[in-house]
Amino acid sequence: MKKIKIAYIGGGSKAWARVFMKDLALAKDLSGEIALYDIDLPAAELNRRIGERINAHPNTISKWDYKVYPEIGTALDGADFVICSILPGTFDEMEGDVHLPEEYGIYQSVGDTVGPGGVLRAMRTVPIYEGFAREIKAHCPDAWVINLTNPMTACTKTLYDVFPEIKAFGCCHEVFHAQEFLSCAVHELMGVPRPHRSEIIIDACGVNHFTWITEANYKGTDLLKILPEFIDKFYEQGYCEHVGSQPQDFRDNPFRYGNKVKMDLFRRFGVLAAAGDRHLVEFLNNGWYIKDKADAESWLFHLTTVAYRKQDRLDKIAQSQRIADGEEQIDVSHSDEEVVELMKALLGLIPPKVSNANVVNVGQMPQLPLGSVVETNCVFAHNSLKPVTSKPLPNDVNALVLRNAINIENTYYGIKARDLNRIFEAFINQPLCSSLTVAQGKELFNKMLAATEAYLKDFYPYTRL
Amino acid sequence: MKKIKIAYIGGGSKAWARVFMKDLALAKDLSGEIALYDIDLPAAELNRRIGERINAHPNTISKWDYKVYPEIGTALDGADFVICSILPGTFDEMEGDVHLPEEYGIYQSVGDTVGPGGVLRAMRTVPIYEGFAREIKAHCPDAWVINLTNPMTACTKTLYDVFPEIKAFGCCHEVFHAQEFLSCAVHELMGVPRPHRSEIIIDACGVNHFTWITEANYKGTDLLKILPEFIDKFYEQGYCEHVGSQPQDFRDNPFRYGNKVKMDLFRRFGVLAAAGDRHLVEFLNNGWYIKDKADAESWLFHLTTVAYRKQDRLDKIAQSQRIADGEEQIDVSHSDEEVVELMKALLGLIPPKVSNANVVNVGQMPQLPLGSVVETNCVFAHNSLKPVTSKPLPNDVNALVLRNAINIENTYYGIKARDLNRIFEAFINQPLCSSLTVAQGKELFNKMLAATEAYLKDFYPYTRL
Amino acid sequence: MKKIKIAYIGGGSKAWARVFMKDLALAKDLSGEIALYDIDLPAAELNRRIGERINAHPNTISKWDYKVYPEIGTALDGADFVICSILPGTFDEMEGDVHLPEEYGIYQSVGDTVGPGGVLRAMRTVPIYEGFAREIKAHCPDAWVINLTNPMTACTKTLYDVFPEIKAFGCCHEVFHAQEFLSCAVHELMGVPRPHRSEIIIDACGVNHFTWITEANYKGTDLLKILPEFIDKFYEQGYCEHVGSQPQDFRDNPFRYGNKVKMDLFRRFGVLAAAGDRHLVEFLNNGWYIKDKADAESWLFHLTTVAYRKQDRLDKIAQSQRIADGEEQIDVSHSDEEVVELMKALLGLIPPKVSNANVVNVGQMPQLPLGSVVETNCVFAHNSLKPVTSKPLPNDVNALVLRNAINIENTYYGIKARDLNRIFEAFINQPLCSSLTVAQGKELFNKMLAATEAYLKDFYPYTRL
Amino acid sequence: MKKIKIAYIGGGSKAWARVFMKDLALAKDLSGEIALYDIDLPAAELNRRIGERINAHPNTISKWDYKVYPEIGTALDGADFVICSILPGTFDEMEGDVHLPEEYGIYQSVGDTVGPGGVLRAMRTVPIYEGFAREIKAHCPDAWVINLTNPMTACTKTLYDVFPEIKAFGCCHEVFHAQEFLSCAVHELMGVPRPHRSEIIIDACGVNHFTWITEANYKGTDLLKILPEFIDKFYEQGYCEHVGSQPQDFRDNPFRYGNKVKMDLFRRFGVLAAAGDRHLVEFLNNGWYIKDKADAESWLFHLTTVAYRKQDRLDKIAQSQRIADGEEQIDVSHSDEEVVELMKALLGLIPPKVSNANVVNVGQMPQLPLGSVVETNCVFAHNSLKPVTSKPLPNDVNALVLRNAINIENTYYGIKARDLNRIFEAFINQPLCSSLTVAQGKELFNKMLAATEAYLKDFYPYTRL
Repeated sequence: MKKIKIAYIGGGSKAWARVFMKDLALAKDLSGEIALYDIDLPAAELNRRIGERINAHPNTISKWDYKVYPEIGTALDGADFVICSILPGTFDEMEGDVHLPEEYGIYQSVGDTVGPGGVLRAMRTVPIYEGFAREIKAHCPDAWVINLTNPMTACTKTLYDVFPEIKAFGCCHEVFHAQEFLSCAVHELMGVPRPHRSEIIIDACGVNHFTWITEANYKGTDLLKILPEFIDKFYEQGYCEHVGSQPQDFRDNPFRYGNKVKMDLFRRFGVLAAAGDRHLVEFLNNGWYIKDKADAESWLFHLTTVAYRKQDRLDKIAQSQRIADGEEQIDVSHSDEEVVELMKALLGLIPPKVSNANVVNVGQMPQLPLGSVVETNCVFAHNSLKPVTSKPLPNDVNALVLRNAINIENTYYGIKARDLNRIFEAFINQPLCSSLTVAQGKELFNKMLAATEAYLKDFYPYTRL
Repeated sequence: MKKIKIAYIGGGSKAWARVFMKDLALAKDLSGEIALYDIDLPAAELNRRIGERINAHPNTISKWDYKVYPEIGTALDGADFVICSILPGTFDEMEGDVHLPEEYGIYQSVGDTVGPGGVLRAMRTVPIYEGFAREIKAHCPDAWVINLTNPMTACTKTLYDVFPEIKAFGCCHEVFHAQEFLSCAVHELMGVPRPHRSEIIIDACGVNHFTWITEANYKGTDLLKILPEFIDKFYEQGYCEHVGSQPQDFRDNPFRYGNKVKMDLFRRFGVLAAAGDRHLVEFLNNGWYIKDKADAESWLFHLTTVAYRKQDRLDKIAQSQRIADGEEQIDVSHSDEEVVELMKALLGLIPPKVSNANVVNVGQMPQLPLGSVVETNCVFAHNSLKPVTSKPLPNDVNALVLRNAINIENTYYGIKARDLNRIFEAFINQPLCSSLTVAQGKELFNKMLAATEAYLKDFYPYTRL
Repeated sequence: MKKIKIAYIGGGSKAWARVFMKDLALAKDLSGEIALYDIDLPAAELNRRIGERINAHPNTISKWDYKVYPEIGTALDGADFVICSILPGTFDEMEGDVHLPEEYGIYQSVGDTVGPGGVLRAMRTVPIYEGFAREIKAHCPDAWVINLTNPMTACTKTLYDVFPEIKAFGCCHEVFHAQEFLSCAVHELMGVPRPHRSEIIIDACGVNHFTWITEANYKGTDLLKILPEFIDKFYEQGYCEHVGSQPQDFRDNPFRYGNKVKMDLFRRFGVLAAAGDRHLVEFLNNGWYIKDKADAESWLFHLTTVAYRKQDRLDKIAQSQRIADGEEQIDVSHSDEEVVELMKALLGLIPPKVSNANVVNVGQMPQLPLGSVVETNCVFAHNSLKPVTSKPLPNDVNALVLRNAINIENTYYGIKARDLNRIFEAFINQPLCSSLTVAQGKELFNKMLAATEAYLKDFYPYTRL
Repeated sequence: MKKIKIAYIGGGSKAWARVFMKDLALAKDLSGEIALYDIDLPAAELNRRIGERINAHPNTISKWDYKVYPEIGTALDGADFVICSILPGTFDEMEGDVHLPEEYGIYQSVGDTVGPGGVLRAMRTVPIYEGFAREIKAHCPDAWVINLTNPMTACTKTLYDVFPEIKAFGCCHEVFHAQEFLSCAVHELMGVPRPHRSEIIIDACGVNHFTWITEANYKGTDLLKILPEFIDKFYEQGYCEHVGSQPQDFRDNPFRYGNKVKMDLFRRFGVLAAAGDRHLVEFLNNGWYIKDKADAESWLFHLTTVAYRKQDRLDKIAQSQRIADGEEQIDVSHSDEEVVELMKALLGLIPPKVSNANVVNVGQMPQLPLGSVVETNCVFAHNSLKPVTSKPLPNDVNALVLRNAINIENTYYGIKARDLNRIFEAFINQPLCSSLTVAQGKELFNKMLAATEAYLKDFYPYTRL
């Protein structure tokens, strides 16, 4: 059994930490220490106590040594893996990101990746990640660093830009949902039970949350060839890949959607967008699918309000508390996440594994700038992560992806230079900002800066344009 | 004196042909034949008669042999140079290009380069240029081909794509206007008479009509450093670089403008856009400078109506007729154009010359796709045109240029494939179409297709989406 | 069970065909037709008869329909896979390739890849492969084409250059030997039984027969880190990875070698050359490891004479005859080859598989020219072969690989143009020709051309310099 | 008149300093200070006194303020231009560079660029240039830095690698000689007096001392088309481009040569090598043109002995002394050098000028690695040096240039890392070392290291392999 140290940065109150700890508890060939660090120390302590509950669970195979560190440096010292999963700012700041643009007719279904909200969130996050990169360089330069925080692309870019020798990648399960969607098509058209997503073999590329599947196959059947029939059948009513869910569930659950945007994009472009519809629309002119709330509903998705997120968070914290206190039983079983499998591949414990990840473009996507962060298939092997060259995107999809990739790069470099003018030009150039005049854009940008000022003032010389 | 054959394709009724013929008449080291070909045969004949008038003029140094050819092949046979200067379709078709989008709130100041009008014009022009490329390959594969037709980028791309060994370049004088504008700044700030534009040394790059000056110098003074002072002085009232003109002249003359857009872009980006403001705004979201007619006026430019163009054309034809008939005297004097100088450089008659031209990107603009057509400085020498590597554009300007460059490429490849769906995706992705919904875009596209159908039906299997 | 058609071009008298047919006989999920074509029709017929023997064998799971075609076109019609495995010319021609250079002090251990022999062999082979590419385009453009013929790089290049949409790759097992060598190191140093080579996970890149392993791992152990100890132990006496063989066996068996060159190169460069030593030395200045026969022996390998090859071939044909006649029993068991596994992956019958292959460089080896053929890891999935980006080679290894890659490209383009002068410049620039004067080079080249003239005169306008 | 400061680093005893000072004395639009710094302080002082003599000369238009600085930092402070022209080590060290390899059958005609001598010289020079780059960064980061020292490519590479924002270029007049050679062809074949080299318009590219002319024109005549006739006429007896010289003069003057190598290379490759034959042969296998002294003579060039250089240097120092003392009159007249003209172009005092220079490859030579230093045409304009994209080299010439370019890069990176093993692999891979065994190479390398040890020991942890 391999003994390793995993530094877990953040994750204080997200359900994801629990999922990860349970997967680790079931990894029979791995053991060691999980070093918990969070700027919210009690949240880290809460995770530690949940860890102990997992250790005590009868299903648990591998017991881990959970420790809370008050300093990031000691948490990182000697780590083999670092997991970064933070919330930059609080949901109060996110409220500005998501809802202020609505005053200017800009609606966002998520608000954490691109669009006005994504830019502001990047402004808060990148300076924090600059610090992470420096700490990792100082304390565990050989560790594999796994980023889970959004905006994924900017976070991963920061890590590499500050510490180019870093061994980092960004992990996101949105592509899995598209595989699930394809697995539904297999079921509906081929008359077989839904296969597991791992049986849907794909080639995908793009930037995180705007990745595209250009090849898909199930046991020798070319799924992109049969998809038109599936779409013809379900275009109107939508189709939800979540087991037990209906397309209309988006009305009650803002994380659900009917995949109608995805189907429409497939009709237009012939390749399958590989993220939830809520993410996809934020990379496109706002006139296309999210002119207003009614437009969104007509495409079978809802806008996720921050009020909802706040309540959801409170619920999750309360649940964590109950688990830690032993008031609620925790169920230790395998999740559908892949992170632990990727770790094993990097440790050389399992054969090389092909999965999608976000890393610096060294040629795997020749259509996008070298040095930008892209999401493609990668081969994970012992101490080795090698991107796989991807099938080129159709010209018109490339136009959409490239525009966003360049905006993300420009946002990043503007933030790196702490130059509000450069950031603003990336902001006003967001597809979601297409309808703004320059004057409106400036006004909105300033309002959004003010709303998040507490998290900017330590890093930026100015906090308004 | 070098004997050459110049094939002049088109140009039947444009004043530019006269300018060119006069410059040739004053070229003491050049002589030979000018082979005139136009699908409008009488227009070519009119040019021939004007040519004879120029030959007879006392200022004329070099008499040329003007011949009209009814077939393009014989006009091209053995040509050393080919000039391409056509109007694709008539102004009736251009009326649809320019004015139909107004029904959807999209205003265009020119309508012949990008934006909805540019896309439709490219649809008419590219198939014609495919024919030109094939004829040149068959009849004069070693000739230097000079394109003057808009959309410049798509025309030049077509020539190279159909006949990769072609020695073609696109020539445009818009950059000259930016040099003139800088010459005004020299005059106003340095207290000297306006220098000739050739004394303003620049580095420029971009795509035609959206080229940017990244370095500018007059006798050792860095002009981009003094420009802010000039702009502070003239931002409000504007400044017109045409001798004897005022900024407000744009109200009567649609080819005039007050350079306020250019000054505003300089303030935003720190580099100088090198085309007339009327062109520049068409490469940007329509909310930025051309939300409507009033917005345009506030930025000191007008929309050029096609009605105006029609009248202007009638006036020019009438004038040509009078000149041919000897009713109006022609003045044979040097123009401010450079084409004849470039020809001399290519013939090795003068030292190598640095000037801007539109050619295939072989690395002169690493930020744009290799193989796309870009405008940069080039060295013209004997039988040799070599692009000069250009200073990289600022990130945020690059985002704007790249988006348009990709759209132009995609428009071209959609037309090459005669695939209306691909063309539409390039159409709806135009910055000027930012405010459209997809449904509106389709409706508008179909209306525009119908308006220009006569010039499409021979080339496209379908003429509506 | 998937029904497919496999066209097998050549292979008339090579043992490899038998191996392949046996692996197919054991593939439980594959069946269909094997279409045999060889310019030596009786040889194809012999293979058919061996196929029938295999069909009749009790171990056989999948019976194939073996058919001999007198025309290549009908053999290819509708094929799902094409195997190309030919001998270009006869061993008489190869005699000139290998032994004429000895008159000028140039010794070759193989003579079929690079060096003077490789260039001449390419001159015979490329024109034949031009024909194959055209036939494949005409008869089975969607087939996967697997090349086994040497020179591997030039053959694969020809296929792609003549028919760019071809789905071709080159397969070679030399890299497997390096994995076996590493498996020996695992055994010797880690005290475990020799693991199967598939457990040695590697990253490799280069050109065929001159590929380098830059990363190697066995269950989490970094093998390149332990290799120095292994080499210190076995450098002097050598080490043979063939089970049951001794390093000194090279004295009797010209396909054996003691891996001393490989160990010496590792000491010099820190990465492991991944082909047999006999191949490696041909990519290097002849003063390095093969100055003469004694030099070769001191490095524990022999020169393979063509006399030996001729006898070996006679033996194999005799054996084939005996098998076909039922005089010798054929043993139907799995080989160590991977081709059938790769075919299954391409058919989507097994999960995506990572293995090394020779394909056009689309960025998997940024150090080598895009468009040249390189060998790296690739992901084989349903109807999809995607090269994996490889770890960059150390600078000094890159210098050696790049020089050869460029020579191979130049040899190819010289042959494509049928231009003996261009081919000669690639010939004289071979590392093995380092010691020649230009005059000697010309003399040798002409002698070698004469020796192979029968196979050149149909393709080249001249057959001497 | 523009006031500038020029820092002149080195040049203590080379005639070139005098030439430069005289050109400056005749530059009517330039004046200011010339700051002299040399590790040999009296040599700098001697130059100062020569400067005073030039100031006093009646032809002098611009008097300069000559100052000697004992510290490099103060010499550089505030400089507008920096000239670097040093001798790394003494001629005693160069004796090892040039003559030790002769013991192994390797002859060198120059020994300062590539080949064994070039590698050792680079080992002495690069660490010094690392210091220069740091001083320039600290004292005059905006200065234009002009390098004249060999090995040119490695020196220029060092400057850019240590201080990437440096504005440096390498200047070499070898290309001028090729222009002169072409001017001879014009004279001999076209029956006109020899034109000035500036009238021979060329496109050239490569690495310094191994640059190739791919296009050449004189007043519209394509010179590469008429060159075969010239070569047929003069191949046997040779042709010397120096006015008043004969091809056989090489027997007495080691800087003369008969251009027979250049003519032979043209016959082989169709493009014209643009450096003296003495340089060219050092980039090629030593069997090609310099197997031994007799071989060199048969190609009409001699090997320059270091004994000759030593005497030549004594003569020049003595002359400098006489000039400084007023015993010998100095003649103040324009030289044929271009450096002062390039400086004027960079100051914006004259129109942009096209000339060849050595700078980092940003795409001007796509066949060579980006980031390596190459020599091509460049446009010199106000505070701007932009490489011109060059015509691609023929494949086989590219193979030769690329091999050397990679070796130079690898030599540089080996030196940067102070890693003798990496340097050795670049050493043994030199074309001039083609005939060596590895063991011979190591022995020779160690001897050469010992001979230059005094200049290595401060920089390298080890001074033998």
